[in-house]
Amino acid sequence: MGEVIQEGSRVLFLTEKKKRYLVKVKPGIRFHTSEGYVDLSELIGKRYGTKLVSNTGSVWFALKPTIIDIVMKMPRPTQVVYPKDLGAIIILGNIRSGSRVLEAGTGSGVLTAVIASYVMPNGMVYSYDLSEEYLENARKQLDELGLLPYVKLKQGDVTVAIEERDLDTIVLDIPTPWLAVPNAYEALSDGGTFVSLSPTIEQVVETVEALNSNGFADVTTIELLMRTLRVKRGMTRPDHIMRAHTVYITTAKKACRDSSDY
Amino acid sequence: MGEVIQEGSRVLFLTEKKKRYLVKVKPGIRFHTSEGYVDLSELIGKRYGTKLVSNTGSVWFALKPTIIDIVMKMPRPTQVVYPKDLGAIIILGNIRSGSRVLEAGTGSGVLTAVIASYVMPNGMVYSYDLSEEYLENARKQLDELGLLPYVKLKQGDVTVAIEERDLDTIVLDIPTPWLAVPNAYEALSDGGTFVSLSPTIEQVVETVEALNSNGFADVTTIELLMRTLRVKRGMTRPDHIMRAHTVYITTAKKACRDSSDY
Amino acid sequence: MGEVIQEGSRVLFLTEKKKRYLVKVKPGIRFHTSEGYVDLSELIGKRYGTKLVSNTGSVWFALKPTIIDIVMKMPRPTQVVYPKDLGAIIILGNIRSGSRVLEAGTGSGVLTAVIASYVMPNGMVYSYDLSEEYLENARKQLDELGLLPYVKLKQGDVTVAIEERDLDTIVLDIPTPWLAVPNAYEALSDGGTFVSLSPTIEQVVETVEALNSNGFADVTTIELLMRTLRVKRGMTRPDHIMRAHTVYITTAKKACRDSSDY
Amino acid sequence: MGEVIQEGSRVLFLTEKKKRYLVKVKPGIRFHTSEGYVDLSELIGKRYGTKLVSNTGSVWFALKPTIIDIVMKMPRPTQVVYPKDLGAIIILGNIRSGSRVLEAGTGSGVLTAVIASYVMPNGMVYSYDLSEEYLENARKQLDELGLLPYVKLKQGDVTVAIEERDLDTIVLDIPTPWLAVPNAYEALSDGGTFVSLSPTIEQVVETVEALNSNGFADVTTIELLMRTLRVKRGMTRPDHIMRAHTVYITTAKKACRDSSDY
Repeated sequence: MGEVIQEGSRVLFLTEKKKRYLVKVKPGIRFHTSEGYVDLSELIGKRYGTKLVSNTGSVWFALKPTIIDIVMKMPRPTQVVYPKDLGAIIILGNIRSGSRVLEAGTGSGVLTAVIASYVMPNGMVYSYDLSEEYLENARKQLDELGLLPYVKLKQGDVTVAIEERDLDTIVLDIPTPWLAVPNAYEALSDGGTFVSLSPTIEQVVETVEALNSNGFADVTTIELLMRTLRVKRGMTRPDHIMRAHTVYITTAKKACRDSSDY
Repeated sequence: MGEVIQEGSRVLFLTEKKKRYLVKVKPGIRFHTSEGYVDLSELIGKRYGTKLVSNTGSVWFALKPTIIDIVMKMPRPTQVVYPKDLGAIIILGNIRSGSRVLEAGTGSGVLTAVIASYVMPNGMVYSYDLSEEYLENARKQLDELGLLPYVKLKQGDVTVAIEERDLDTIVLDIPTPWLAVPNAYEALSDGGTFVSLSPTIEQVVETVEALNSNGFADVTTIELLMRTLRVKRGMTRPDHIMRAHTVYITTAKKACRDSSDY
Repeated sequence: MGEVIQEGSRVLFLTEKKKRYLVKVKPGIRFHTSEGYVDLSELIGKRYGTKLVSNTGSVWFALKPTIIDIVMKMPRPTQVVYPKDLGAIIILGNIRSGSRVLEAGTGSGVLTAVIASYVMPNGMVYSYDLSEEYLENARKQLDELGLLPYVKLKQGDVTVAIEERDLDTIVLDIPTPWLAVPNAYEALSDGGTFVSLSPTIEQVVETVEALNSNGFADVTTIELLMRTLRVKRGMTRPDHIMRAHTVYITTAKKACRDSSDY
Repeated sequence: MGEVIQEGSRVLFLTEKKKRYLVKVKPGIRFHTSEGYVDLSELIGKRYGTKLVSNTGSVWFALKPTIIDIVMKMPRPTQVVYPKDLGAIIILGNIRSGSRVLEAGTGSGVLTAVIASYVMPNGMVYSYDLSEEYLENARKQLDELGLLPYVKLKQGDVTVAIEERDLDTIVLDIPTPWLAVPNAYEALSDGGTFVSLSPTIEQVVETVEALNSNGFADVTTIELLMRTLRVKRGMTRPDHIMRAHTVYITTAKKACRDSSDY
């Protein structure tokens, strides 16, 4: 059965009209939407997945949010990373429990939170950003999510210097990833994986050239298209509108630069 | 720098013609390809990423394989799960270190191995298959990869019974997932996630109907298209051929079946 | 140089903000938009492609609209057919100057107009619809476009009867195309092409089964995805949002039903 | 019923294993395939669509080929244009009966043949190529298809000069379309449409820049993905493999270069 909903628990409301709201349960609070309101007190002691009815008669589920449900609702000052891309970053970046991962930039902290949730409990994310403001915002978000112990937030520019060594994975979501490639090479362990996210094709070309000429091998660029389906017997079809582009994902493995050093 | 290549290490050869070979290093063995051979003894004591030249002059890298590199080279008696889908399964299935995950069927063990590598060190995969032969083959593969401690292989039919309770995630890759939905409901913890992989649209329709009428909410079906790019300044374009379809991925969250039980 | 803009000419305004407006030139009329207005009188005697400036300083082009520009701006009481699909219908439907084509239903007349513009000057479109209202509306539109001489609008149900014989192509955009397949068979000439447009997969399955069991061969179903690109040096990428689904297009060729009749 | 198969007719064999063969009917000839042979004499006097059985028992249809069936079987010394793209070129290029269209390069003549079949009976295609050999080959193909009256094949380089004026459409399938943009501008009528096909993104960027700075408006780049479906009740799914990239299609309309000239 698992734990029940308590004061302070996060709940994902899924309304009758398929709207999604992430709320933190506090007694005495009414949560208002265009489909009416519910009293959050009602939820305390209930099982996750419980059904409730708003004052206007709309039927809602109070679901247990996953990490993805949560990060998709985080405030986003910067570029968005989508679930389809998050999965590829984790899998192709070889990020797993215990991994030591550098990420830049921190931005909204969405990607930081997801990576942290995959390297825990023994791994660590080193997350660089130029902006103290972004870092401060991310710190609050990660703290709220209990992920701060797995993240070192660092003010700094990875195109200038990366302090860590023997990293398992480096994930770059910055405007000029190619400028950070030499530093990334030094910072990765043998067998380490480089991942870069870029919205434009020109960024990809620059990055791939930098990787090829700085000792990386198995350089690959992909793009994922996610199609959602409306499934209803007799009326099944792909959804009409789709997010057709987010970022290109370039991956590479650290290899030997010249024969003398290996 | 990390560990060096030793006897028994797995190495991913990436040849000049971009062929990929996964080999286990044994002294005194020559590894033959259409681009010549190398002596595996040469590799012992070298760093991962080392460059070597075959007897015919082809330049190869000896890279450290990731779990994905390894499973993509596993013998595959059954349907293939691709990296693009593996990422979505891990992320959308909310599978992480410590998760207790049921998987059916075991098949080639590819998906079992990947899930195991994400739930370790404290989680567990319960992997069901009807076929003793598939289970035996998967056992060998998982043992080779050091992942057997995180997997319980079980001969059984999940459409008949699931013994586990309070599971975090259930991942079905079977021909009739809809028949296992009631058992999946009982076996999942509140807040647990259901994931089903099906190649055909009719399977998806049956499964979505079973989920909707058996207490699941947030039922979603997606399909991922992965496009690879040939990146070369002045000649950049998507690759001509693409694997356009593998499986539809349906996910759902356990919710309340009727108001009395929550 | 071509003809100049005259009173009564259609002009496609492309504004500075890339908005598209289709207007008919009348003297003494101001055409108002969110980017200011222009006096249509200004256009008379000018060449197509002329540049003009709205009262608020927005720079517009007055382009000569193509048939596609025009139909995309037609009032649309019914399902939309998109340019990507129009091209496939014309090409895969083997529709060309001189073709005799049956179309059902007429709907907004968009597809009727495009087909008419491809069969002219010697071909003919027989366009069926159940609704007198739709037919009347389409008649007005086709008349406006000068295409009425190439279209016979007919109130009728193609699942009940098709009066024409020896047709080159039949294009169905109706909810139950499978019910019209036997009539389509009788109405097509040997070597004639059947085309059906359906938004849902279940409609496709019914239609393909009907084609296979009613003497059609070379039955094929496709779907076209059109991606638009934002092209700007250093910032080139696919557009973020895409219309991911419109209709499936099923085509087939009339063949012999049994050996005795050929 | 239409015409029957005669000596010299083209027939499209569709075999039981869905192989497609385009043959010209000659008496006394056996047509051999991996599914046995048939005597072509058998076909004479039969209706298109007739069913026949090879000597090994394979059931074939003898279908009437469309222009697309025919060009897809033409010998192809150069880059291939696919049906999905042909439809877009015809529709977006505003090519119709009576159009005067310039095409370069002629290459295999595939695109030439398709355009010719859409501009006939009163239009004309001016098809330029640098290679006399390609032009000679295309001449033979077009003659065979009865399309030569609608095509003027010209040895020449459109980046150097285009002799025609007041063209309705220009379609470029050459390595450096941007170099032909100024000539294309002079050669098009007001309201004329420019279409360019390029496999790489860098070619697209160059071409779009040239169009923007040489008096074109409504510059748009698209890419079409065509997905084929395997439709079979209970087993319906997209095909596994897809041609994911052929060419980017850039279109533009001639507009005024500066206000003085309009």
